[in-house]
Amino acid sequence: MTWHDLTDPNDAELDGLAEKYHLHPLHIEDCRHQNQRAKFETGADYLFIVLKPAHIDEKGELSITDLDIFLGRDYLITVQEGACPALRANLNQLRQTAGQTRGDQLFYKILDATVDAYEPVLDWYANAIDEIEDKVLETPVPETVERIFSLKRGLIEMRRILTNMRDLANQMQRLESDYIQRELWPFLRDVYDHLARDVESVEMQRDLLAGAMDIYLSSVANRTNQVMKVLTVLGTIALPSIVVSGFYGMNTKALPFADTPHGTWVAVSLMVALTVGLLVMLKKFDWF
Amino acid sequence: MTWHDLTDPNDAELDGLAEKYHLHPLHIEDCRHQNQRAKFETGADYLFIVLKPAHIDEKGELSITDLDIFLGRDYLITVQEGACPALRANLNQLRQTAGQTRGDQLFYKILDATVDAYEPVLDWYANAIDEIEDKVLETPVPETVERIFSLKRGLIEMRRILTNMRDLANQMQRLESDYIQRELWPFLRDVYDHLARDVESVEMQRDLLAGAMDIYLSSVANRTNQVMKVLTVLGTIALPSIVVSGFYGMNTKALPFADTPHGTWVAVSLMVALTVGLLVMLKKFDWF
Amino acid sequence: MTWHDLTDPNDAELDGLAEKYHLHPLHIEDCRHQNQRAKFETGADYLFIVLKPAHIDEKGELSITDLDIFLGRDYLITVQEGACPALRANLNQLRQTAGQTRGDQLFYKILDATVDAYEPVLDWYANAIDEIEDKVLETPVPETVERIFSLKRGLIEMRRILTNMRDLANQMQRLESDYIQRELWPFLRDVYDHLARDVESVEMQRDLLAGAMDIYLSSVANRTNQVMKVLTVLGTIALPSIVVSGFYGMNTKALPFADTPHGTWVAVSLMVALTVGLLVMLKKFDWF
Amino acid sequence: MTWHDLTDPNDAELDGLAEKYHLHPLHIEDCRHQNQRAKFETGADYLFIVLKPAHIDEKGELSITDLDIFLGRDYLITVQEGACPALRANLNQLRQTAGQTRGDQLFYKILDATVDAYEPVLDWYANAIDEIEDKVLETPVPETVERIFSLKRGLIEMRRILTNMRDLANQMQRLESDYIQRELWPFLRDVYDHLARDVESVEMQRDLLAGAMDIYLSSVANRTNQVMKVLTVLGTIALPSIVVSGFYGMNTKALPFADTPHGTWVAVSLMVALTVGLLVMLKKFDWF
Amino acid sequence: MTWHDLTDPNDAELDGLAEKYHLHPLHIEDCRHQNQRAKFETGADYLFIVLKPAHIDEKGELSITDLDIFLGRDYLITVQEGACPALRANLNQLRQTAGQTRGDQLFYKILDATVDAYEPVLDWYANAIDEIEDKVLETPVPETVERIFSLKRGLIEMRRILTNMRDLANQMQRLESDYIQRELWPFLRDVYDHLARDVESVEMQRDLLAGAMDIYLSSVANRTNQVMKVLTVLGTIALPSIVVSGFYGMNTKALPFADTPHGTWVAVSLMVALTVGLLVMLKKFDWF
Repeated sequence: MTWHDLTDPNDAELDGLAEKYHLHPLHIEDCRHQNQRAKFETGADYLFIVLKPAHIDEKGELSITDLDIFLGRDYLITVQEGACPALRANLNQLRQTAGQTRGDQLFYKILDATVDAYEPVLDWYANAIDEIEDKVLETPVPETVERIFSLKRGLIEMRRILTNMRDLANQMQRLESDYIQRELWPFLRDVYDHLARDVESVEMQRDLLAGAMDIYLSSVANRTNQVMKVLTVLGTIALPSIVVSGFYGMNTKALPFADTPHGTWVAVSLMVALTVGLLVMLKKFDWF
Repeated sequence: MTWHDLTDPNDAELDGLAEKYHLHPLHIEDCRHQNQRAKFETGADYLFIVLKPAHIDEKGELSITDLDIFLGRDYLITVQEGACPALRANLNQLRQTAGQTRGDQLFYKILDATVDAYEPVLDWYANAIDEIEDKVLETPVPETVERIFSLKRGLIEMRRILTNMRDLANQMQRLESDYIQRELWPFLRDVYDHLARDVESVEMQRDLLAGAMDIYLSSVANRTNQVMKVLTVLGTIALPSIVVSGFYGMNTKALPFADTPHGTWVAVSLMVALTVGLLVMLKKFDWF
Repeated sequence: MTWHDLTDPNDAELDGLAEKYHLHPLHIEDCRHQNQRAKFETGADYLFIVLKPAHIDEKGELSITDLDIFLGRDYLITVQEGACPALRANLNQLRQTAGQTRGDQLFYKILDATVDAYEPVLDWYANAIDEIEDKVLETPVPETVERIFSLKRGLIEMRRILTNMRDLANQMQRLESDYIQRELWPFLRDVYDHLARDVESVEMQRDLLAGAMDIYLSSVANRTNQVMKVLTVLGTIALPSIVVSGFYGMNTKALPFADTPHGTWVAVSLMVALTVGLLVMLKKFDWF
Repeated sequence: MTWHDLTDPNDAELDGLAEKYHLHPLHIEDCRHQNQRAKFETGADYLFIVLKPAHIDEKGELSITDLDIFLGRDYLITVQEGACPALRANLNQLRQTAGQTRGDQLFYKILDATVDAYEPVLDWYANAIDEIEDKVLETPVPETVERIFSLKRGLIEMRRILTNMRDLANQMQRLESDYIQRELWPFLRDVYDHLARDVESVEMQRDLLAGAMDIYLSSVANRTNQVMKVLTVLGTIALPSIVVSGFYGMNTKALPFADTPHGTWVAVSLMVALTVGLLVMLKKFDWF
Repeated sequence: MTWHDLTDPNDAELDGLAEKYHLHPLHIEDCRHQNQRAKFETGADYLFIVLKPAHIDEKGELSITDLDIFLGRDYLITVQEGACPALRANLNQLRQTAGQTRGDQLFYKILDATVDAYEPVLDWYANAIDEIEDKVLETPVPETVERIFSLKRGLIEMRRILTNMRDLANQMQRLESDYIQRELWPFLRDVYDHLARDVESVEMQRDLLAGAMDIYLSSVANRTNQVMKVLTVLGTIALPSIVVSGFYGMNTKALPFADTPHGTWVAVSLMVALTVGLLVMLKKFDWF
């Protein structure tokens, strides 16, 4: 069994292999155009499989690449479009023992490594969402909304590739084919189970993000409410004083008590009494 | 019939049993990794089943564990990952009569016990939601939102395991297999019915929670509205007085009535008249 | 054909019948536990059917009960769990002519009576929603929200039992069975049609309720908007007067026109002019 | 081929026909109860079809009626429950050439006329939604919400009957039956295509209506925001003047500059300076 | 192989071709009525296919047209209803080599060209959404909402035609037919993959648009909140001064400190102290 491990789809070697193994031109074309869907197709005398490795790059952004695989009777060709460091490390390790392994076993190991590499991505999202949930109630700033939607964007992408990968694994776990031996079926089913769990977990994370957005909106509404209350309490405290002092500021005759020595105290008492009265009233309506 | 009841998946005994009964390495691996989906698989000469017991722990949090079962011709192996006290008690009781029971009957009883243990969990959620619904209209505080979303999180989890368990029961109720006798089918169908009811009830609880969130938001909006009204009424009462007293506070000549002995009463009458006029107007627009 | 019409599932008579007709213990258990799903099951030599009668009780609350039916070759057993007055009346009437009727015909009549009894329930909801829609725009009080959600809760319940009943009718309308004659099929299909219509109508009512909630929220938002406008208009009217009278209230020298006999009128003219100016401006921005 | 065209389901003629052609009592009952679902059923020796004509009545309200059809080997019976003027005109025209036409062809023409009559209804909704979308941004009044929900109600109804009609057409386009000749299949398929397009278009209109509601809510929120800004700007302009004139209105000694001849101008300069300062600040925060 | 490339469906040539090749009148009718769904139908001795080309016109609006194709044994008829410039250019180019090409190959090339022409449309939407997302947080003006909903309208349309096209390609990729050779299947499958990816991408764009609307609403809510805070802070600064100066403006006897030479400074100190106190309090409640 020979393994041709190409890291550049535009490598001329691919053309040579295409000729040697009679690879379909459409499949070669697929190798050279990124953004294929995860799928497998039966070629003339080989299986063509597209996997979708994913990782979080240094900028904290989701990066999704293509890994194209030709699985023939006595050869395996992998074409990696774009870099996925974790998977690369894994492939390099597999290469050392590739000679002794059967082609379909090797394919399973590559598939398994690709699926295992989703784990850190999902964990990264779980952490990011936990952080968001904490922030969203304490300090609901607009940047949080931006963050929520960038996470949402990523999860939409993840769900897309995971469901496609799951469907692929589902079809392969019962695939009657010359290139995959029956003994491998339970292992492929295991991969399917793993992906099904991942899909469920992404769905849950999307629900949680939607929840975080709702919390955000309710937080903002609540704060507006709080601000209004403060404003109203301020008004409640100040207005009686302003009204009373306005009254005693009038240049009319015979302001009651104004000319007595205790006029000022009468006015102040009136202010305090009215203010306290209003506050008691607000208290009754359950405001503090 | 022998029942091997392991409570620790890392127990070396499991390895011994794996060798003795030719258990598939993938199944042993499943036993040692939590968070499997509820499923059943047909092994070489046994059935492998993963159940998902659930309970509410002392902190009031949903705890979901795995219960792995190997059902062979003359043996039953159960591997419990993580503790579920209610189920444990039940299993201990079953153990005392296990010797006389057939393997598939014992399996049914364990399945039934697992499903029965969902009941208190669902009741706990029903109560929690009832409490929330009461609180949400009277005192809509942000903590309520947090509570709603933690409950929502739990219900999403519950729905996930219940639907998987239901699908498992659905497949098993018609399973032509050497390990489960036909006579057991109506009983498995009964379990299926039970789980289908549980799924429906979780769906309903999710709808109710979504409703509680809507009530919360409408409550906050309403309160803001109330606060605004109070502020406006305060303004309505105070502004005429301020305007009139401002007028009579001016240091200009010939303020009308200002120099007559009844100037003050003229001013006060004006204030009262304007305020009452405004309040009557607001009343007309249906504000009280 | 004998009809055993039990109104108490704990009646010892049921045990007697169970023994006589070899009823499955699980079915007897179902009879004694409320809250089964609508379903039918094929027993050893009978059909076991669970129907879900519903009515609105005197408190205006939805009450859903169970009606369990055993349909054998020459007997019919009905077990009513919980009271449903309308259905009871109907059953009593059927009893008078039961002797001459065939078992499956009688079953159909009971099924038909159960389905007919949904009609007043759905009408009750239609009326309640119409009332809500009227109220929600005129007087959006928090009680309306409570009412909307209690109605929603009921409709969720109704949809649940109606879809289960519909699926039951769908399966029975083509059931090859010894206990139901072919001639009855069009009648069962008619029941199915009726239930399908009911499900559609509940779906529509749920849509309308969701709409009512949206109207409510938009109403509250609108009212807040109105209140704000009133407050702003009040401010617009009062502020110029306050500013001007404040100005002329200053104890500084040389207030323009203050010492002329027409000072007061200058000030008042200024107030009126500024206020009118502001109101014209607001008018331009389309506020009245 | 004879065509019995009844416009009153309670006509005694229908009973006569029922007897003559052995029509099933359930079908006669269906003819006499409005609000059936669109469906077709195979009778003893005829097809029974329920169509759902729709039109917008003079009050601008959606009116949905029933058109029941019995298609036998050499006769056609149509029973119209409720009036649909456009369809009636069409049927009258068909009657003039009915004699020469085959029964299934005539049936197709009636079906086609019924489906064509949906077109003006959908156009009416498209126009109504266009109008709403224009109004909703300019003048978001509560009546708009009422209008949106009455349109929504109509579209829910339309979708219900259109999907039922589509399913009916889908089943009939491949119906092996004595009453419909194969040659008619492409024509029925054409009707199916038409209905499928109509369903898609109703779905789209519902999406647009939901969008209009969102625009409405965002419009109201925006206006509240605008009102608040105006209020704040008013406050910004007035408050410095009030504070300064209050200061100079105090009856204390040694008010700075108060006794100089330029005191008034000092005060006014202070007012203007503070107001401009505040407005500049608000400008910086991007308010105009 | 002859290719009849009609650009006007009302061309009399079509009638001639219809007669010559026995085209079904319904298909000719479809050619002359726009707004068909993407579909294919098997005619007497040809395939009839409707494709849906799309492009963004100069006004920046989505324009969807119909391309009807008759694929016979030795001829191909294309009828273009409405203009799609990009596709036209492509068809003109294909025409130059049409003579040597087989009919089904030519059909594939036309299908491929139609699908490739979706790419710039989807890119245009992706760009428009990116722009919206940037604007929505910075300057949430009502025009943005209008723009969001016009984009949404377009995406709803695009999804509709893309899903129909995808279903068409899905059915054709396994079509046993005299008019399409097996060798073409992988190519049709490639088109299917392409369309499936396009559908997924439109779904994602719809999710992103919905997100943009949520961001908009949260932005408006946030701004209202900001405005309220500014208003409250203004009130906080001004009210103490107004109250204190009102107090010292009263015409009562014995105002404390009023007659001392430092009265003014006492008053000002009081104002400043109260204002600072209130600001400190607001600060504590986390407002800046």
